Amino acid sequence: MKIIIAGTGAMGATYGSLLKEAGNEVVFLDSWKENVDKINTQGIEFHDQNEVKHIEAKASFPQECKEEADLVIVFTKSMQLPNMLENIKHLFAKNTYVLCMLNGLGHIDTLKQYVNEDRIIMGVTVLTASMKGPGVFACSAHGKTEIQNIAEGGKEGALKVVEALNNASLPTEYHENIRYAIWRKACINGTMNCLCALLDCNMLQLGQIPKSRDLLQKIVQEFHDVAQKEGVEFSVKEFTDMVCWFTTEEFKGVMHYPSMHQDLIQNKRYTEIDFLNAYVAKKAKEYGIEAPYCELLGILVHGRESVLNVK
Amino acid sequence: MKIIIAGTGAMGATYGSLLKEAGNEVVFLDSWKENVDKINTQGIEFHDQNEVKHIEAKASFPQECKEEADLVIVFTKSMQLPNMLENIKHLFAKNTYVLCMLNGLGHIDTLKQYVNEDRIIMGVTVLTASMKGPGVFACSAHGKTEIQNIAEGGKEGALKVVEALNNASLPTEYHENIRYAIWRKACINGTMNCLCALLDCNMLQLGQIPKSRDLLQKIVQEFHDVAQKEGVEFSVKEFTDMVCWFTTEEFKGVMHYPSMHQDLIQNKRYTEIDFLNAYVAKKAKEYGIEAPYCELLGILVHGRESVLNVK
Repeated sequence: MKIIIAGTGAMGATYGSLLKEAGNEVVFLDSWKENVDKINTQGIEFHDQNEVKHIEAKASFPQECKEEADLVIVFTKSMQLPNMLENIKHLFAKNTYVLCMLNGLGHIDTLKQYVNEDRIIMGVTVLTASMKGPGVFACSAHGKTEIQNIAEGGKEGALKVVEALNNASLPTEYHENIRYAIWRKACINGTMNCLCALLDCNMLQLGQIPKSRDLLQKIVQEFHDVAQKEGVEFSVKEFTDMVCWFTTEEFKGVMHYPSMHQDLIQNKRYTEIDFLNAYVAKKAKEYGIEAPYCELLGILVHGRESVLNVK
Repeated sequence: MKIIIAGTGAMGATYGSLLKEAGNEVVFLDSWKENVDKINTQGIEFHDQNEVKHIEAKASFPQECKEEADLVIVFTKSMQLPNMLENIKHLFAKNTYVLCMLNGLGHIDTLKQYVNEDRIIMGVTVLTASMKGPGVFACSAHGKTEIQNIAEGGKEGALKVVEALNNASLPTEYHENIRYAIWRKACINGTMNCLCALLDCNMLQLGQIPKSRDLLQKIVQEFHDVAQKEGVEFSVKEFTDMVCWFTTEEFKGVMHYPSMHQDLIQNKRYTEIDFLNAYVAKKAKEYGIEAPYCELLGILVHGRESVLNVK
């Protein structure tokens, strides 16, 4: 399979390196010059669990790539997706599938502006990876990936992608209801991320504040109400139990600071709040329903961005 | 007039010192031993604007005081009011007036548990003062005080207190609608205080975050809805204009961090949120109306208290 990785950060490099190692032809795209140059001159240094691998690779800026591929995997930050798609729209041939596993909500609508519905595959993954510098990446565990085509016509392609990922040591399952899985993950991120960033705390501390469960449940309820309008059903009780579990000592990563805390507090970067709580608030308004908690959390996170003068 | 100051912090010491200087008999009560001892042995060192005054004074613990007075002025932190009243309830003779100028909401209900309605006088003041250490206090300007009895029968007493305060260089006016003035001040504190504490910013920065006015207006609206249920009417537009003005460079104190920021962020102390936004949220629930912004702000401020392990 010929595969383009659109966005060679930690996640893109990990998927791309493993797919290349498994025999696929892979092109890496990225907008960061140092990263592109390093990959082109020295390949990718990939710390795959306990093993350091050297992956021969070619990279280029998105707008300069001329290759046609069977599959494009987009792996940008949420807010960079429209710009990336604009820069690579010339790469979407009639039969090119696009796989998107970004966190957050609203990406399907963005993708539909550039890609035929039959060719869009959505996914969620629990794999985590990190970037150590230009061209140097690490993955500590090959967490499970779940994907599904969003329109009937895409199923054959999605199954091929499942196979390709599994062949590349990326354990992947075809999911019968990927929108449910996306909202499920969004509920986790939409509770942990903004609250730990605003309160400057880890997940255990979040679980210990007064009225913690009420707070998490109220947010999940607002996500639920918008999901329902979009045809996705889930149980508020079940999802609330799940997000609460992430704040207990049973969860081994409970001392962890979620990514929005890292972005906002540690690195003073823009957050993905517009694809989580602020997305829910915006959609709630469109649907004529209430989502005041998400609305206020969106304003407060953008407020912290403003006060911290993030870039 | 014989006056008991119940709570000899910055505000209590300032009012008490000026009233004593004007010829009233004043007893100072406080629960902090170093403060009581210092006042008893060395009097009060009162930095009154540019002048340093030495005020001869006697102080004691609230529960040990046996004096009967014409007027008790309560000047605790909001959350200490019930405990102070419990400790001094033996001092409320039939004709003792009680003047309360604490920030925040809900104090009238607390006072009514200990004092006959006819004897309760409420006030707001813009005087600011600071404590420099046990027995040492400073006041930079004699800002205006406004007071009113809360029941018909108390008007004569309130007018006498107005006179006594004016005679003590504390410019004071009788207010025809003190509940309005209390809600007005609560709207200022209920917007500036919690937001600057949560966003860790000054008032100018608060005014510069995206959707700042929407945010302030939404909070004022919730205060309005509860005030209305309690028989107090004000214009949301007018109060929103006022609180927004405090975030502009026209307000000379705009670089100031409000008291809740000082309590929570700078000094890691409990905040007065239960007498501002969390009070509005609680009352809204009792009245069967919505106040989700105040509710969430209450939870978040208590959350920060928990994370910061305040005392």
